[in-house]
Amino acid sequence: MQKKLLLIALSLPGLALAAEGMWTLDNLPMNRLQAEYGFKPGPEWIKNTMLSSVKLPGCSGSFVSKDGLVMTNHHCASGCIEQLSTAKQNYVSNGFLARKHSEEQVCPAMELNRLEDITDVTEDVRKATAGLEGTSFKQAQNAIEATLTAACVGDDKEKTRCDVVDLYHGGRYHLYKYHRYADTRLVWAPEKAIAFFGGDPDNFNFPRYDLDIAMLRVYENGKPADIKHYFPFSKNGPQEGEMSFVTGHPGSTQRQLTMAQLISLRDIGLVDSLQHTAELRGVVTQYRKTSPEAARTADQALFGIENRYKAGTGRLQTLLDPEFMARQQAEETALRQFVNSRPELKEKIGGAWDAIARAQDSYRQLFRVTNMTEGAEAFNSNYFRLARMLVRAAEEKAKANAERLPEFIDTRLPAVQQNLFSKAPIYPEFEKLKLTHSLTKMREDLGVDHAFVKQVLGKLSPEQLTDKLIDRTRLADVEYRKTLWNGGKEAIALSDDPFIKLALAVEAESRTYRKRMEQEVQAIVQKNSELIAQARFAQSGTSVYPDATATLRLSYGEVKGWDQGEHKIRPFTNFAGAFERDTGAYPFALPASWQAAKGKLNLQQPYNFVTTNDIIGGNSGSPLINRNGEIIGLAFDGNIHSLGGAFWYDGRSNRTVAVHSGGILEAMDKIYNARELLKELTGK
Amino acid sequence: MQKKLLLIALSLPGLALAAEGMWTLDNLPMNRLQAEYGFKPGPEWIKNTMLSSVKLPGCSGSFVSKDGLVMTNHHCASGCIEQLSTAKQNYVSNGFLARKHSEEQVCPAMELNRLEDITDVTEDVRKATAGLEGTSFKQAQNAIEATLTAACVGDDKEKTRCDVVDLYHGGRYHLYKYHRYADTRLVWAPEKAIAFFGGDPDNFNFPRYDLDIAMLRVYENGKPADIKHYFPFSKNGPQEGEMSFVTGHPGSTQRQLTMAQLISLRDIGLVDSLQHTAELRGVVTQYRKTSPEAARTADQALFGIENRYKAGTGRLQTLLDPEFMARQQAEETALRQFVNSRPELKEKIGGAWDAIARAQDSYRQLFRVTNMTEGAEAFNSNYFRLARMLVRAAEEKAKANAERLPEFIDTRLPAVQQNLFSKAPIYPEFEKLKLTHSLTKMREDLGVDHAFVKQVLGKLSPEQLTDKLIDRTRLADVEYRKTLWNGGKEAIALSDDPFIKLALAVEAESRTYRKRMEQEVQAIVQKNSELIAQARFAQSGTSVYPDATATLRLSYGEVKGWDQGEHKIRPFTNFAGAFERDTGAYPFALPASWQAAKGKLNLQQPYNFVTTNDIIGGNSGSPLINRNGEIIGLAFDGNIHSLGGAFWYDGRSNRTVAVHSGGILEAMDKIYNARELLKELTGK
Repeated sequence: MQKKLLLIALSLPGLALAAEGMWTLDNLPMNRLQAEYGFKPGPEWIKNTMLSSVKLPGCSGSFVSKDGLVMTNHHCASGCIEQLSTAKQNYVSNGFLARKHSEEQVCPAMELNRLEDITDVTEDVRKATAGLEGTSFKQAQNAIEATLTAACVGDDKEKTRCDVVDLYHGGRYHLYKYHRYADTRLVWAPEKAIAFFGGDPDNFNFPRYDLDIAMLRVYENGKPADIKHYFPFSKNGPQEGEMSFVTGHPGSTQRQLTMAQLISLRDIGLVDSLQHTAELRGVVTQYRKTSPEAARTADQALFGIENRYKAGTGRLQTLLDPEFMARQQAEETALRQFVNSRPELKEKIGGAWDAIARAQDSYRQLFRVTNMTEGAEAFNSNYFRLARMLVRAAEEKAKANAERLPEFIDTRLPAVQQNLFSKAPIYPEFEKLKLTHSLTKMREDLGVDHAFVKQVLGKLSPEQLTDKLIDRTRLADVEYRKTLWNGGKEAIALSDDPFIKLALAVEAESRTYRKRMEQEVQAIVQKNSELIAQARFAQSGTSVYPDATATLRLSYGEVKGWDQGEHKIRPFTNFAGAFERDTGAYPFALPASWQAAKGKLNLQQPYNFVTTNDIIGGNSGSPLINRNGEIIGLAFDGNIHSLGGAFWYDGRSNRTVAVHSGGILEAMDKIYNARELLKELTGK
Repeated sequence: MQKKLLLIALSLPGLALAAEGMWTLDNLPMNRLQAEYGFKPGPEWIKNTMLSSVKLPGCSGSFVSKDGLVMTNHHCASGCIEQLSTAKQNYVSNGFLARKHSEEQVCPAMELNRLEDITDVTEDVRKATAGLEGTSFKQAQNAIEATLTAACVGDDKEKTRCDVVDLYHGGRYHLYKYHRYADTRLVWAPEKAIAFFGGDPDNFNFPRYDLDIAMLRVYENGKPADIKHYFPFSKNGPQEGEMSFVTGHPGSTQRQLTMAQLISLRDIGLVDSLQHTAELRGVVTQYRKTSPEAARTADQALFGIENRYKAGTGRLQTLLDPEFMARQQAEETALRQFVNSRPELKEKIGGAWDAIARAQDSYRQLFRVTNMTEGAEAFNSNYFRLARMLVRAAEEKAKANAERLPEFIDTRLPAVQQNLFSKAPIYPEFEKLKLTHSLTKMREDLGVDHAFVKQVLGKLSPEQLTDKLIDRTRLADVEYRKTLWNGGKEAIALSDDPFIKLALAVEAESRTYRKRMEQEVQAIVQKNSELIAQARFAQSGTSVYPDATATLRLSYGEVKGWDQGEHKIRPFTNFAGAFERDTGAYPFALPASWQAAKGKLNLQQPYNFVTTNDIIGGNSGSPLINRNGEIIGLAFDGNIHSLGGAFWYDGRSNRTVAVHSGGILEAMDKIYNARELLKELTGK
């Protein structure tokens, strides 16, 4: 039986620090908000916030007009911007502005989702998996998820998406129902030089001077979507000390992991994977210097790599910090003592930590070969990604819904198709670069004599195999992909495309490792994490927030600088600062449009600012709103101290970095002369 | 007063495991040798071993004929081989063979040293530094070192080198006197394709199929040096289970560090530095693909980078291994309990571990900026290296010997000059690549707003500054370097060379950080490590061997495979295996000379093999000798399990990888037709 949740906040005494927490909208920390800021959001405020928030792939956004206008970061829309560009018409470097709807261009592969409803399905999931272990447990979980989401979506697959969301590591399962927007168009993007001014050196730093914004518009039935809930713009923006909310989709935090999991994460998820990322960064950095076209086609990927690299390095620092680890150990010890002091809990939950630790040993044995095979790290190419998707879809679609791999259940197929039939360009030279490198790393990491390496390479070098695959594949052709999709297993089996043949050849081995990882690691971790979550609820109720899960959360805080050793970092920068930082050389070169407009600009206009809001990757593009639900800024980054936020929130220095709403309007007006957009946002 | 040591071995009961240990030749584990192998080397055996062993920069070698012929690894001589090559005459890819003395070519920058004498100077050093702290301690240590080495070298600077060697981390100080060979010539090198067959994928692995050998010859007064002690060749080589010795110069181990030091090493020396190395690897890998000339000029550096990367990754695995760390912790706890149980030790030594731990905190604060400035990581270019050497030499030569930086005391100047006036080519394009990258990393790591970054870059980008420096420098001209050297401080001050000006500009800041690091970290660690060494001696005498210090050591062991999970790894490979592994594609392509000779070769001839000898980086090029002092092999690598050997010796799987002496002779004879060399080695 499913229990419908009302959007009513629970009000239990909390453990979290001031401003800490990424709260689900059905469980806001009302008492704390009241006590700290004298503010208690009402049901309408909460509902409007939820319905004005949008999820983008890996990012966040918000509705800012009744005509479907969506604000997000430039770096969240840059995939689309790059895909719409060509060597001759480069919107990445030159920017883009549609002055009327007919000039807005369709993003080749961008689906937006808006959360509409939350249902508690914890009991359904518990019942379905009760008493099961390993693969059976995993399969039962997949099956109930397929059933629940199918019922939730009903007949409206095109416009509805439903996900079962695992909160508190299995402490609660909620069913999230989204409105799907599959037709998204580009409206405005400034030049990358100003969207990402300061580039990698300034990334995760502050003071900052970035106009990291893009405007998109969602369409339905070929017309701008009719939107009832959206955030109006505040021209004045916030004052120092003013309360701020961030509503968005933080991707993932690890604040509730066990010590054994944290150590795995340190050694494998960070130390090991950062070395790989660093090397790939070197390869792509050097490649992009070989020609302007190489730079154009590689820069989007490079941004992702550098962002991941820097974020990972910051997170690693926290896991190498003996003080932090001691703090986590103390928390874990306290919780275990709490459990052991209650016989009924001890009996049921006492062994959970050791079980998870043992699963980590299996993980250490399996991770490398599983990443290479099932994780496809050996085959870093869009062609392989498409080939595997086609091969697996053919196999899975032939099965009953509840028996499929979860990424191919009926309710997910529209998203799979959107991805598979995207017209986003693929650049063969860049694909060769990535694939050669990843095949080389496969050989290095697994060893020359590993059976999988021998199967893949035979007597070929990574370069030779790459050429053989990429020179002959037809997967760049969307029509060919449609033929294979429609042709099902038979078409796949008959295809002579070298990537399809490769994906087929490595399928058995890949699935074997996936299954072993599920059985020997994931199922054990999931089951025992549920137990630990129950212990936490017994200890402190739901007055704690769940780890981030790429679902909608609200964080609260205020506009505030911080102390950096002896330096006091002020919370605001202004336009004058951007001109002072300009060196004329990448990545510190202001674009020509800014140079030209300098005389017209109010140089004292606040431009970027920081707040104490608790956010993490995935929150990029989130609006900052004030108590009135008005947009006062656009989150685009965290400072360097926010990176440890994956593991804990340190209010002394963890800061959200945002573009000021007044700065956005000033730039639209004086630099970009975007009159139509301004009118849509402000009515003027 | 100095106490002359005789080459007599101490015979105390030992703590070390069988085959464990890199023993100084004046303290061999005689009882253990006798007990385990029934072999007790006599004074003549030991003396002959010492005088037949040679130290190369970062490597080892041995005399193998009375005419100054030196055997080492190809990868130890590859600097010379590459420096003697040109785009047209590529000895790296084609190999090199001098059929008579007149064809032997002078290596532009290679000095060889042979250890001749060891003197205990512990008391002299102790007296000089007694009661001193911080910088005074460091300066007194430098001064006594300058005095002792000056007296040791006497008037014979050209042919004598003396070093004070710090053993047992300050437990003992010995004065090592070397014969210098400054005129080294290339005699033979096979093609790199076979010297490094399997390339990076096979590096630190086994089975192997490498002919990683080069022959050099030292000259004196323009003629081949007259050598009394050398190792004869064994054509048969060793049998499985046969005893083997390795004599060579292992660079550095960390088996006697405190837990606090191991954790620093993990976080800074490995995790942090490996990320940098991985990225540089990616940059250089991609650069070398841009043209054959780029590959030729970058490959020597790339080998070093990849070797360091893989070795570091292996070492890191050990420091991330909870079992290993627990073992070290137990050892440290036991030693501390031993100290605390004896009031006189507790009073004097009890605080040493905590003092070292506090120094590590300072190290964490200082390492990054010190590496960038004093460590010159910001300026990764041979031009800067030369510029700094010239700038510092001018400053230091003007001071009294005992007051100089230790690398510029009188007895070191010949080596400085050899380095400074080397005719080794410098490749401007490759220098640009490295310098641009390192300046970029400086900006990233210290931050755009760091005072040092602003001083170095001003408003220039790393690319712009690099071009400005490299396009205008004259430091490629050896004559210009000589002019600056001879002109001293005045010439330096007047030079308009951009690298000289840069080196001068960053000198004050660099020296400041050097001094802080010495005062706040090194002096404290040195003083307290001496105390801990005294505790160890009190606990177990000198029946333990000191950590490796790039000085002559002997290790013993035997020819033996190992168990890899369920696989049994056999100790020998043969020529047939090399042909089986050949794919025709780099790095698994046998050279044409091998293909041509296949019919003539004895394919069953043992080629590479493994032993249990305890070695580490720096041992490359070491001979393996049998009880009769005959060469049975040439060490060129360790297996993957040997990498943890930096921290402990695990006899179950730690293996030395060597070329078989019979394999060397067979290849010389049948593939390279090197009759003259064969005759010199075997008399036939």
